Amino acid sequence: MVTINENYLKLPGSYLFSTIGRKVKEYGEAHPEADIIRLGIGDVTRPIAPTIIKALHSAVDEMGQEETFRGYAPDLGYEFLRDVIAQKDYKERGCDIQADEIFVSDGAKSDCGNIQEIFGLDNKIAVCDPVYPVYVDSNVMAGRTGEYDADWQRCKGVVYMPCLEENGFMPEIPTEVPDLIYLCFPNNPTGAVMKKTDLQRWVDYAREHKSVILYDSAYEAYIAEADVPHSIYECEGAQECAIEFRSFSKTAGFTGLRLGYTVVPKALKVGDVSLHSLWARRHGTKFNGAPYIVQRAGEAVYSAEGRAQIKEQIAYYMGNAKIILEGLQAAGFSVSGGVNAPYIWLKTPNTMTSWEFFDMLLEKANVVGTPGSGFGPHGEHYFRLTAFGSRENTIRAMERFKSL
Amino acid sequence: MVTINENYLKLPGSYLFSTIGRKVKEYGEAHPEADIIRLGIGDVTRPIAPTIIKALHSAVDEMGQEETFRGYAPDLGYEFLRDVIAQKDYKERGCDIQADEIFVSDGAKSDCGNIQEIFGLDNKIAVCDPVYPVYVDSNVMAGRTGEYDADWQRCKGVVYMPCLEENGFMPEIPTEVPDLIYLCFPNNPTGAVMKKTDLQRWVDYAREHKSVILYDSAYEAYIAEADVPHSIYECEGAQECAIEFRSFSKTAGFTGLRLGYTVVPKALKVGDVSLHSLWARRHGTKFNGAPYIVQRAGEAVYSAEGRAQIKEQIAYYMGNAKIILEGLQAAGFSVSGGVNAPYIWLKTPNTMTSWEFFDMLLEKANVVGTPGSGFGPHGEHYFRLTAFGSRENTIRAMERFKSL
Repeated sequence: MVTINENYLKLPGSYLFSTIGRKVKEYGEAHPEADIIRLGIGDVTRPIAPTIIKALHSAVDEMGQEETFRGYAPDLGYEFLRDVIAQKDYKERGCDIQADEIFVSDGAKSDCGNIQEIFGLDNKIAVCDPVYPVYVDSNVMAGRTGEYDADWQRCKGVVYMPCLEENGFMPEIPTEVPDLIYLCFPNNPTGAVMKKTDLQRWVDYAREHKSVILYDSAYEAYIAEADVPHSIYECEGAQECAIEFRSFSKTAGFTGLRLGYTVVPKALKVGDVSLHSLWARRHGTKFNGAPYIVQRAGEAVYSAEGRAQIKEQIAYYMGNAKIILEGLQAAGFSVSGGVNAPYIWLKTPNTMTSWEFFDMLLEKANVVGTPGSGFGPHGEHYFRLTAFGSRENTIRAMERFKSL
Repeated sequence: MVTINENYLKLPGSYLFSTIGRKVKEYGEAHPEADIIRLGIGDVTRPIAPTIIKALHSAVDEMGQEETFRGYAPDLGYEFLRDVIAQKDYKERGCDIQADEIFVSDGAKSDCGNIQEIFGLDNKIAVCDPVYPVYVDSNVMAGRTGEYDADWQRCKGVVYMPCLEENGFMPEIPTEVPDLIYLCFPNNPTGAVMKKTDLQRWVDYAREHKSVILYDSAYEAYIAEADVPHSIYECEGAQECAIEFRSFSKTAGFTGLRLGYTVVPKALKVGDVSLHSLWARRHGTKFNGAPYIVQRAGEAVYSAEGRAQIKEQIAYYMGNAKIILEGLQAAGFSVSGGVNAPYIWLKTPNTMTSWEFFDMLLEKANVVGTPGSGFGPHGEHYFRLTAFGSRENTIRAMERFKSL
């Protein structure tokens, strides 16, 4: 008789964005006249840049001609893409990462969720709190955690590292040594960044304790300040202890095109076993490559025109971030993020809970954001706004905040 | 200290198609004058049909305009695609499958590899022998099998169902009851098909023993004969015991575009738990949708023009299959497949091993095929040719076979 993976039953029920969607829908139905502005979900809104559109059209044409048609892609991704990634994202930043250490995929979410598979079930994971839910959920599914404790609002057996105003939203080295450490900087949801000297401390710690850092760098394109590392491989020794995830979603608006990559340096070993070879085997067995046309689109992101257009797009979103940041400060809110990241993290006023603030904001200002508690218990009394809306809506939302 | 997933070390070393690639490369380097014809790997060669190319261009244009840009896709896939799949692939064949039982993905390989995750580690799996390697490998990685036995050439703890000339390449009900039964028809690599009455017997067996059938129907578009089911849901009761995988790769030449789908009927339950909800959770946590433009391409496959163009493409490949089948028969080979599938399965002459025949064919005829033993020990003394080459090369390859 067949049995199910019982670990799935440990996952807490309803998903944050479904609950938000339901609440907004109900409010809209009860108030059809309401002009609702959505600054909640982390999805981009600007169209794909012209140079990338051109590359897509050209690749589509290739697929329609016998002479240029492409079938299955190479396992790790096309060389034209991996070469330009190695050059532009790593070598030009002084990181010695080779093209054959880069695995092209359909996005950082898939890779962040799948990476845990190559590790033993006995590893202890550490995550920031608040945190992007995929890290913990994928480990719950695999059986690497205990039960979800509804009162504690966390999974047993996971090391949670609180990120609060008191510590500048920076995780502190935990007392219990974890084996797998998930770090995401610039951070979702807090928008905080880690300086190079601080990240180096984590790299040193991981090397000392033979832990592996799983570094989610999906928002690196939003970094504006000089002493913030774009890649963990800017730190000395990181190639021996870190795997890095990158995404084209927020960098170039690819949320609907699906492209990302993961770097597994060949120097990263557990005993005699190279994690590169394990991930290559996983990639080759359970994945069949990102679409050729999308890989060509990814290549165009690195062209001179592509880079200029992307820069403009990011400047547009970061212009929104500035408007939100200054608008909230003027309205008397305690805020952070928004300087090197498209997320603004605000403290709810009068010790309101995150959901109380969500309801109040929806009712009084018709603005939708994301309750911080949805990212973990230490997100309680916080609230996330995103810079991904239109300029017009962002300005209007701030006007409404002022008159709250 | 971090540990690896030791199950990965159980996987047998070199991958079939890498070995073939190396051998062909070495031969080509030693004989630069040789005109090598490749009928080995199962990748298509015809360009994407004009109607689909048009749909891709149009969707690319949408992504370049603010008003029509699309970000993250809905979790299960766009409704426009799921609706047309439910209608054309199921309702029109008398199968009561709803759009919300269809999960759009980046291909059947990913889904076939990932589906095992929602089941317990204590389940016993059964596979045909010879077999597509992903089914077993993904279960080895998860720890659902024992060690690989190099002498036996199989993994301990797996139920292998021999498919040989003697039994018409049809698996027989095993003596030991499996919990998860992988079936693929039309079959890769043998090209065999299962008639509806035979498949019904498997459905009845699965229901009786509370097993689940994982039905890989990636080649259904090649079915030419009337009594061969296109979907397992043509069998009575299959919705209570079967998950079906479908691919656009061989149907419409999408190997480089990446699109597939999986059907998990809501009636399929293990105790109180719906497998649909588990797969939805897996899909939502570790995947972020197939690209919008590729989903539009998938929709175009079902348009009147799309269907006509696809039919022509499949007729082209099946014309090749006929040439191979008749050519081999005329040359005195014992052959099967090639009627409802793009694969032709031949018995090696004079009890040569599969690899001996591979070497001989490469040297004497400069033709590349796939050794049957690469698909499992009961593939020994067999050899796979595919119909995916060009017409010209297929004809030339058969001329060379005649003069072997």
